[in-house]
Amino acid sequence: MTFLVATLITEGKAKQLYTTENEEVVRVHYLNQATALNGKRKESVAEKGLVNNEIDSLIFNYLNESGIKTHFIEKISASDQLVYKMQMVPLEVVIRNFASGSFQKKFQVAYLKPFDRPVHEYYLKSDALDDPFINESQIQALALATPADLAVISRLAEQVNMALRQLFAKIDIDLVDFKLEFGKTPDGEIRVADEISPDSCRLVDQETHQSLDKDVFRHRSGDVMSGYRTVLDRLLAVLN
Amino acid sequence: MTFLVATLITEGKAKQLYTTENEEVVRVHYLNQATALNGKRKESVAEKGLVNNEIDSLIFNYLNESGIKTHFIEKISASDQLVYKMQMVPLEVVIRNFASGSFQKKFQVAYLKPFDRPVHEYYLKSDALDDPFINESQIQALALATPADLAVISRLAEQVNMALRQLFAKIDIDLVDFKLEFGKTPDGEIRVADEISPDSCRLVDQETHQSLDKDVFRHRSGDVMSGYRTVLDRLLAVLN
Ligand SMILES: Nc1ncnc2c1ncn2[C@@H]1O[C@H](COP(=O)(O)OP(=O)(O)O)[C@@H](O)[C@H]1O
Ligand SMILES: Nc1ncnc2c1ncn2[C@@H]1O[C@H](COP(=O)(O)OP(=O)(O)O)[C@@H](O)[C@H]1O
Ligand SMILES: [Mg+2]
Ligand SMILES: [Mg+2]
Repeated sequence: MTFLVATLITEGKAKQLYTTENEEVVRVHYLNQATALNGKRKESVAEKGLVNNEIDSLIFNYLNESGIKTHFIEKISASDQLVYKMQMVPLEVVIRNFASGSFQKKFQVAYLKPFDRPVHEYYLKSDALDDPFINESQIQALALATPADLAVISRLAEQVNMALRQLFAKIDIDLVDFKLEFGKTPDGEIRVADEISPDSCRLVDQETHQSLDKDVFRHRSGDVMSGYRTVLDRLLAVLN
Repeated sequence: MTFLVATLITEGKAKQLYTTENEEVVRVHYLNQATALNGKRKESVAEKGLVNNEIDSLIFNYLNESGIKTHFIEKISASDQLVYKMQMVPLEVVIRNFASGSFQKKFQVAYLKPFDRPVHEYYLKSDALDDPFINESQIQALALATPADLAVISRLAEQVNMALRQLFAKIDIDLVDFKLEFGKTPDGEIRVADEISPDSCRLVDQETHQSLDKDVFRHRSGDVMSGYRTVLDRLLAVLN
């Protein structure tokens, strides 16, 4: 397969999507770019694209092998991977196992308070509207997804959560919360798409309680890539 | 029944609650006070307490007669009514038939766009946290209500919506949206409590599209009591 004719489909805050010779497949190119405040703060971070491409590929391979339907095909270079082209559902699905971030702030609960059952939240993916928090009734009123779609999305999100908690537990990391995006294949099957990396997860070392994720960038509290590399090294030790 | 020994239980933004000789019953006294921005703006409005007490009593009587479980017992004076004392569920339940207010703003949809099915939203009733929008999963994580409680609350809210839409349709008013609060009796039965009035509903004249509710106060767009009196006069013409 050659990429000489590749044209840019979309450029987001973290990745570029390019066409491939197969129109059902797109190439994802990971950028060395970190953003916060929904893109209002943007900085170049050396090696971030490579590390996230590697972490994301390990995780999506693991999910595929666990029988969970995803968009992922294969990693093809240090910064690139192939995925199935999806019709994206314009929602961000957040799963929380412990209180942190906006939940902790909004409801004034203790940092890392554990939940008996994972909390599920939806956000409308819209830079123009600033990704507002949205409930299932509003999603249906705005025809963003059907109740049947939401049931599949919610079940897939639960499966991903269980698989990832197991995986991270093996490498002494708590999966505090994470964000998923979903897409539909041309024949209407809903699959996990986009990215799973320290950009989209809160990951906390079980012993030191150090953040190994984008919170280090958000709070300017240290060397963001050192946590990302820790996650990658530990994943490599248990996967492949 | 005398109220000589009545002591104040709570004073809210619109009402005072007093004890009565029967400890299962409280007296609600409606204040001549209007607030906006969750209480940050507060003004005295002549006759508002009387008109809201009268409208609320008409509506709760109508709901009781429709077989919907409420806290309401009877109106006992121009500004006062008796209700069953409830253990309040700390949620505000909003039902929307047409887009307006925060929904319209958050999702940038047209004013009064009709919904195919009513939108249900929950807000955590907490002045300290500024009544944040909350979903069912978060409600369960914070142990504010059980899934069984929420199912009852949601069904009661739907019943109230259907009954009120029918009522207001008879008097040429569209019920755009409204807020309910629920409480539990000592034996655990969930009932509609608090208040239903132009303070808690958006009511729009079907012909002129004039607001007959608190939006007139919120937007300082005219004489707020004139709309409230229109609602009362029209209700009196079809009820009793
Ligand atoms: N399999 C896929 N098919 C099509 N689009 C996808 C797929 N996976 C992710 N995307 C989309 O690619 C875009 C670029 O990703 P990203 O840089 O993370 O964007 P954003 O700035 O929206 O977070 C996003 O709109 C994302 O939803
Ligand atoms: N039947 C009831 N039993 C006990 N409390 C009630 C009942 N109905 C309403 N309340 C509560 O009475 C309080 C006063 O009402 P209001 O002035 O509207 O207060 P707020 O400022 O919270 O809106 C509120 O906390 C409301 O939830
Ligand atoms: Mg993204
Ligand atoms: Mg009130």
